[in-house]
Amino acid sequence: MRLRLTPREDGFYDLFADSANNIVTGAQLLVELISDGTDREAIAEKMRACEHAGDECTHAIMHRLNESFITPFDREDIYDLASRLDDVMDYMEEAAELVVLYKIQTLPPDVVRQVEILERAAELTAEAMPRLKAMRELNEYWIEINRLENQGDRIYRKLLAHLFGGDYEPLEVMKLKEVIDRLEDAADAFEQVANTIETIAVKES
Amino acid sequence: MRLRLTPREDGFYDLFADSANNIVTGAQLLVELISDGTDREAIAEKMRACEHAGDECTHAIMHRLNESFITPFDREDIYDLASRLDDVMDYMEEAAELVVLYKIQTLPPDVVRQVEILERAAELTAEAMPRLKAMRELNEYWIEINRLENQGDRIYRKLLAHLFGGDYEPLEVMKLKEVIDRLEDAADAFEQVANTIETIAVKES
Amino acid sequence: MRLRLTPREDGFYDLFADSANNIVTGAQLLVELISDGTDREAIAEKMRACEHAGDECTHAIMHRLNESFITPFDREDIYDLASRLDDVMDYMEEAAELVVLYKIQTLPPDVVRQVEILERAAELTAEAMPRLKAMRELNEYWIEINRLENQGDRIYRKLLAHLFGGDYEPLEVMKLKEVIDRLEDAADAFEQVANTIETIAVKES
Repeated sequence: MRLRLTPREDGFYDLFADSANNIVTGAQLLVELISDGTDREAIAEKMRACEHAGDECTHAIMHRLNESFITPFDREDIYDLASRLDDVMDYMEEAAELVVLYKIQTLPPDVVRQVEILERAAELTAEAMPRLKAMRELNEYWIEINRLENQGDRIYRKLLAHLFGGDYEPLEVMKLKEVIDRLEDAADAFEQVANTIETIAVKES
Repeated sequence: MRLRLTPREDGFYDLFADSANNIVTGAQLLVELISDGTDREAIAEKMRACEHAGDECTHAIMHRLNESFITPFDREDIYDLASRLDDVMDYMEEAAELVVLYKIQTLPPDVVRQVEILERAAELTAEAMPRLKAMRELNEYWIEINRLENQGDRIYRKLLAHLFGGDYEPLEVMKLKEVIDRLEDAADAFEQVANTIETIAVKES
Repeated sequence: MRLRLTPREDGFYDLFADSANNIVTGAQLLVELISDGTDREAIAEKMRACEHAGDECTHAIMHRLNESFITPFDREDIYDLASRLDDVMDYMEEAAELVVLYKIQTLPPDVVRQVEILERAAELTAEAMPRLKAMRELNEYWIEINRLENQGDRIYRKLLAHLFGGDYEPLEVMKLKEVIDRLEDAADAFEQVANTIETIAVKES
C-alpha cells in the first residue's frame, strides 16, 4: 500500500485537471456549433450544461481553498488559476448562446480558424495540468499558448476588417461582432491562464 | 454605560451600510428615471450626486483600511467589498447618464423588469450589511441574489433578442444596447458583492 | 566611491520610469497619428514597436518582483503599478491599430482634445515616477490626473452625443466609437495608475 502524504494537495491538481478537461469538451462543442447543418439549440443546451459543470469545479476549488491550511502553491495563485479557467468557459458559453439568441445563420468563414485555435489551446491547457505538480515542461506550454494567442489576434483583426468591409448590414455586423469578440475574449483568457501558470512556475523555480 | 471595545471595527460596518443604503437610493432613482413623463435630466443630476456620495464612502473605507492595524476581516476582502459596491453604483449612474446623453425617448418595456431586479438586489444588499458583523443569515441573502441574477440574465437575453428583432433602427439598437448592458453590468456587480460576502463568511465559519 | 546599499530597490524605480517614458512616446505617436496627411500605417507600426518595448519593461518588473526578497513597497502594489502602466500602453496601441484596420479617414475634431489629454497625463506620470522614491509631491500629481480624467470624461461624453447625433452612418459610428472608447479606456487607465500611486503613498506616510 502506497502512503499518500499530501492528500490535500493532490485534490487541487485533480480539480484543475477536471476544469481544463471540461474546457476541452466546451471547445469541441464550439467546433460542432459552427459546423453546417447542426442543431444549434441542442448544442447550446449542452454548452450550458458544460459551463455549469465548470462552475461546480470552480466552487469546489474555492471551497477547498477556504478550508485548507496548507496549499501546494500561493493561495492567490490558486484563486487566480481557478478564476481564469472559469473565464475561458464563460466566454465560450456566451459565444454559443449569442449564436442561438441572435439566430445567426452564417458565420464568416474565418470563425472556423478562431474556434480551431480555441480547441488547440484547450488541449494544450489540459495537457499542461498534470505537469503542474512536478512543475515540468511548463515553459513549452506557455510559449505555445502565447504563439496561438498571437495567431488568434491576427485572425480576429482580419475578421473585424472583413465585417466592416461593406458586405454586411449594420445589425448583422453588431451581432457577428459580439460572437467574434466573445471568442477572442476566450483566446485572451487562455493566455491569462498560461500567465498565471508561469507566475507559479517562476516562484517555485 | 456600555463599553465599546472595538470602535475601529464598527467603523467599517457602518461605512459598508452607508454604501449599500446609498445604492438603494440610486436604484430608486433608476425606477423614477425610466417612468413616463419624468424630468430625466433632473434625475440624472440627482444620480450624479448619489454616485459622488458613494465615492466618498469608498474613499472613507479605503482611508480607514490604510490606517488600521486591525481589521474585522481580511484586508483584501474589505478592499474587494468596497470596490464591488462602488462598481454597482458606477454602472447604475452610467446607465442613467446614457439615457439622457443619447436623448432616448422610449425604452423597451422589459427594461422596467431589469430595473426592478436591481431595486430588489439593492434592498437585499442593504439588509444584509447589518448582519455582516454577526455573520448571520448571510446564506439566504447570497442564494437570493444569485436567483435574482439568473432572472436578470434571462430578461437581459430576451431584451437582446427583442432589440435585434428588426423593430429598431441600427443607431437606436446601439444606444439602447449600451443602456441595457450597463444595467446588466450592475446586476452582475451585485452578484460580485454577494460572492465577496460569501468568501468572508466561509473564512469566518 | 559611493556605496549603494539598496541596488535591488533602485531597479524597480528605474523600470517604472522606463515604462512611463515609453508611454510618453506612445502618446506622441497618437498625436501624430490623428494629424492630417500622415502615413498612418507607418505610425501604427512604430506604435506596435512601442507597445512591445512596454511589454519588455513589464516583464522585467515582474521578473525582478519574483526574484526579490525585499521590495521597496508592497509586492501587490508593484504588481498593480506595472500592470496599470501596461494597460495604458495597450489601450493606446489598440486605438492606433483600429484607426488603420478600419481605414478611418476622418476622425471627429474633438478626438484631438481627447489625445491631448492623454499626452498631458503621460507627461505628468513620467514626471511623477522619479518622485516615487522620496514619496514627495505625489499629491499634486494625483489631483491633476484626476482633474484631467474628469475633463476627458466630459469630452468623451460630448463625442458620444456627436457620434449618435445623425451625421454618421451606423457602420461609421461603430468604427469611430471603438477608437474613441479605447482612448477613453487609456484615460481611465492613467487614473488607475494614479490611484495605485496614492495607495502606495498613503501606506508609506
